Amino acid sequence: MRVAVLAHGKFPDRAKTAVGVLRYADYDVVAVLDRERAGSRVTDHVPAVQDAPIVAGFGEVPEPVDALLIGIAPIGGGFEESWRPDVIAALTRGCDVISGLHYFLTDDEEFARLAAENDCELQDVRRPPDDLSVSEGLADGVDAEVILTVGTDCSVGKMTTTMELAQDARKAGYDAAVIPTGQTGIMIEGWGTPIDRVVSDFTAGAVEEMIREVGDNHDYLFVEGQGSIVHPAYSAVTCGILHGAMPDALVLCHEAGREVIHGYESFPLPPIEEYVDLYEGLAAPVSDTPVVAGALDTSDLDDAAARQALTEYESAIDVPATDVLRYDTDDVLEAIL
Amino acid sequence: MRVAVLAHGKFPDRAKTAVGVLRYADYDVVAVLDRERAGSRVTDHVPAVQDAPIVAGFGEVPEPVDALLIGIAPIGGGFEESWRPDVIAALTRGCDVISGLHYFLTDDEEFARLAAENDCELQDVRRPPDDLSVSEGLADGVDAEVILTVGTDCSVGKMTTTMELAQDARKAGYDAAVIPTGQTGIMIEGWGTPIDRVVSDFTAGAVEEMIREVGDNHDYLFVEGQGSIVHPAYSAVTCGILHGAMPDALVLCHEAGREVIHGYESFPLPPIEEYVDLYEGLAAPVSDTPVVAGALDTSDLDDAAARQALTEYESAIDVPATDVLRYDTDDVLEAIL
Repeated sequence: MRVAVLAHGKFPDRAKTAVGVLRYADYDVVAVLDRERAGSRVTDHVPAVQDAPIVAGFGEVPEPVDALLIGIAPIGGGFEESWRPDVIAALTRGCDVISGLHYFLTDDEEFARLAAENDCELQDVRRPPDDLSVSEGLADGVDAEVILTVGTDCSVGKMTTTMELAQDARKAGYDAAVIPTGQTGIMIEGWGTPIDRVVSDFTAGAVEEMIREVGDNHDYLFVEGQGSIVHPAYSAVTCGILHGAMPDALVLCHEAGREVIHGYESFPLPPIEEYVDLYEGLAAPVSDTPVVAGALDTSDLDDAAARQALTEYESAIDVPATDVLRYDTDDVLEAIL
Repeated sequence: MRVAVLAHGKFPDRAKTAVGVLRYADYDVVAVLDRERAGSRVTDHVPAVQDAPIVAGFGEVPEPVDALLIGIAPIGGGFEESWRPDVIAALTRGCDVISGLHYFLTDDEEFARLAAENDCELQDVRRPPDDLSVSEGLADGVDAEVILTVGTDCSVGKMTTTMELAQDARKAGYDAAVIPTGQTGIMIEGWGTPIDRVVSDFTAGAVEEMIREVGDNHDYLFVEGQGSIVHPAYSAVTCGILHGAMPDALVLCHEAGREVIHGYESFPLPPIEEYVDLYEGLAAPVSDTPVVAGALDTSDLDDAAARQALTEYESAIDVPATDVLRYDTDDVLEAIL
């Protein structure tokens, strides 16, 4: 499938869905929409992903194209009205529109009408199934080892770490699958449940259901974590995944230099070592779940500083760590597998 | 308002909504509907609540009556078809119907039609508002002191403790209000948001919104907690309330003798003292929130055993505790106010 990816004003640093799709999905990306970067190319900004031109609007997306994918997610998950002309242009050209926003495109009268008129589909991947239920506390009954990525904050690399570790485990000959819990993971894997969107009573149950659905068919499940257990807004999602997944091991993800909660700057991050106690202590009554490895995003640092930051991070959490995009994952995988 | 309370086959022990309404709500309860107890009176079964006759069906409810309130919640929150004649009789007599079931009465065609024909209202208190959003981390900006009840498990007295402490604080001359987060609390207080039904991303935000709505009008807010931070299924709700409320103090609720999670008997409760560390440790990155008091449900024990259990409980959590229905709340309120 050939897709254009909308990322106005946010590519690449605040467009994690767009970058995730460019890096991991099977889609052929024909263009990225970003008014502020128009005229440049994807690889001018992000190394080692598939390349594509960056254009100002859907009118400049080259044919053929099958779908427009919303590649950014503002806090709150609303729809920015400035994107409406691009969505209208896509639907008018007969393209599907794939969105992970909290705002459901199928509930927008204009989009629904245009989609019907042009015989194309609005895919709201963040709309959860309506047959979810409460957890039964049975996720640890599956044959697979379950590895959950957890974070010190939002946007510290949980999805990337999940994808890289699963990919590298497969390359090393292990049967590893991903349990996608968020919009980007779902867009990449083509299935999954958007845990942040389920009824809060069913948070753990929705994760348990996915693990039990595929767990006996694989040796390792890498569960995409969400949020952070210390996040003022999103910790409920994190906690539900931690208890619903009943994981065998945790990988603690962090961004080097991050000192306060992103978007909630009055909340400082606790010391790194406290996270290990918090996650293990909170997991313990439901499952015995040690932090066995770490992942550190060092993309803002030069190589010497990155290696220094990794050494400090490993010392703080007392297990092997790596930057999954910059260095190899051998030691981390050895700790996990 | 004069209400009849439906509790067929469950009054009083498995009708916690009915008992909560009888004990705390401002409604004038004119009858309880329970086929199996018809002919007796409320105070034959529950001491120290408002009295009313128990009748077999809505046809026997004395005039005048303004509403029928569904006072029981079966596992799963479904609607029992055996209740349909009572709901129809109420609507036909022009009464509103108030329900906290997961099954929404407004989605039932027959009830919706009868309500319209008879100009009465179907109130589904478990339907959350549709304009909720993520927390901004601002709940501690209100003038009031915020006190949250937390639990070792579900059904250990968080709602009762919340209501009793708020009531006793008011009796002692303090301006105290309740923040209702579950169906019974909402029915008693006449407002509130059913947190277990909101989208998980908005769990903290929904609590924050309620606190900010009324916080500047009161000196003390008693927030009704839900679930438990160690619950395999419901911990997401608990965690979201803990971080969304940004409380100044916690009251840890427990039932004497409870050793395993109710309904999840393969999960033992952690030692009581660990709960203090878990709740305080999890709260700390968002708000400095000590456990300042405890509430112990001793209803299964005789007086000597109850006092012994309270002594042990106080020693484990190292703060004053009481059984809020059995003994006075003086020491606990002194620790809070």
